[in-house]
Amino acid sequence: MSGALVIVGLGPGSADLLTPAAARALHAATDLVGYGPYLDRIAESVPNQRRHASDNRVEVERARHALELAAEGRQVAVVSGGDPGVFAMAAAVFEAVESGEPAWRELDIRVEPGITAMLAAAAEVGAPLGADFCAISLSDNLKSWETIERRLRAAAEGDFVIALYNPASKARPHQLGRAFDLLRATKSPETIVLFVRAAATSEARVVMTTLAEANSATRSISRNERAPWVYTPRAEQETAR
Amino acid sequence: MSGALVIVGLGPGSADLLTPAAARALHAATDLVGYGPYLDRIAESVPNQRRHASDNRVEVERARHALELAAEGRQVAVVSGGDPGVFAMAAAVFEAVESGEPAWRELDIRVEPGITAMLAAAAEVGAPLGADFCAISLSDNLKSWETIERRLRAAAEGDFVIALYNPASKARPHQLGRAFDLLRATKSPETIVLFVRAAATSEARVVMTTLAEANSATRSISRNERAPWVYTPRAEQETAR
Repeated sequence: MSGALVIVGLGPGSADLLTPAAARALHAATDLVGYGPYLDRIAESVPNQRRHASDNRVEVERARHALELAAEGRQVAVVSGGDPGVFAMAAAVFEAVESGEPAWRELDIRVEPGITAMLAAAAEVGAPLGADFCAISLSDNLKSWETIERRLRAAAEGDFVIALYNPASKARPHQLGRAFDLLRATKSPETIVLFVRAAATSEARVVMTTLAEANSATRSISRNERAPWVYTPRAEQETAR
Repeated sequence: MSGALVIVGLGPGSADLLTPAAARALHAATDLVGYGPYLDRIAESVPNQRRHASDNRVEVERARHALELAAEGRQVAVVSGGDPGVFAMAAAVFEAVESGEPAWRELDIRVEPGITAMLAAAAEVGAPLGADFCAISLSDNLKSWETIERRLRAAAEGDFVIALYNPASKARPHQLGRAFDLLRATKSPETIVLFVRAAATSEARVVMTTLAEANSATRSISRNERAPWVYTPRAEQETAR
């Protein structure tokens, strides 16, 4: 049996949001490759696979290792948080393919999609992505801060709802504030800003505030003694119905 | 028991990509509200619910009907293709809440996320959304064409990967071509363009071409006698590793 590699999206965290297709891909694997905490998350449901845990920062090395295993004839699942195609492992695998062994191009490689954090975070509060939106990673590990600023400016000029991934880390504590400063130059101070942690898990936390990002049309609906809903109307203006 | 309303994302089509949480929400409902073909899609798996099918174009009327049912004490699931928060039913429900009965604000309303078409389409070919990206609906039913052009221009200026939803319909046959014309003014003619239909279903069809949208870094990896993979490197330039 020849080797194969599937990059599997685990979704935002809960097993409830792992698709049946992703679960089946994990079960069919002989080897699981990924960031340790992601492998731990699925340890109970797929206990019989060989595990290859790695650190969070070594995506391309991890991808190469997975490709080597597949080239040896293993059935490899590379696990990824959220959706593997969104700021996650799928692009890292194809980067490794492009710069790696010619034989890797002939491997059976596929991607199993998952619920990316932006969708889970939006669902926690209502429908803030209801109109046109964009997703920007604030990490400058792989691109310059100038590119990030250019994209933030373009997103503000286009009045997109903006989903920020990788908003801050210990090594990059100031980037989210810099992004907000930049957005404040263009967008209304009343623009709704949501901070969502651990969306779609039992530890989910949402903080709603104003000033900065998000589409100028994003609005909240107040309720008695409960958190407001947040949504972005699909129409750009109030439309009589 | 008081009424409740959940807006459920069915994902791109196959039952394999319906999350367990979404399936449970459908089973727990007494009433299913939605566009007829979406209700047909789940008819076998949830046969005992009362069905309220409607036409594709009446989202806010459909949302109001669902809210009325919930206010009467029913457990209502509004079904939505893909993710309900992305150009789908969730924003329509909140629009109806905002302009509707004050009592609707006190209902238990929640959103069950799903795999949106953009993620399923990306997974069909590799990882074209690997870097910053945006999603733009080309439908001008609810916004002006000027707004769409402004967003396309901003997306091109920001060098985002661009996912176009609602690219064309019988009533709007020329908008995709107009969008490409606009993007051609800014982007390289070699920019990869993908047309994906029925992603993540057995009828999936992918056509890859060049000219127009997509991130300037999006690249294809050729293979012997097989379709190329397509991905967007996470780094903005080749980085030595």
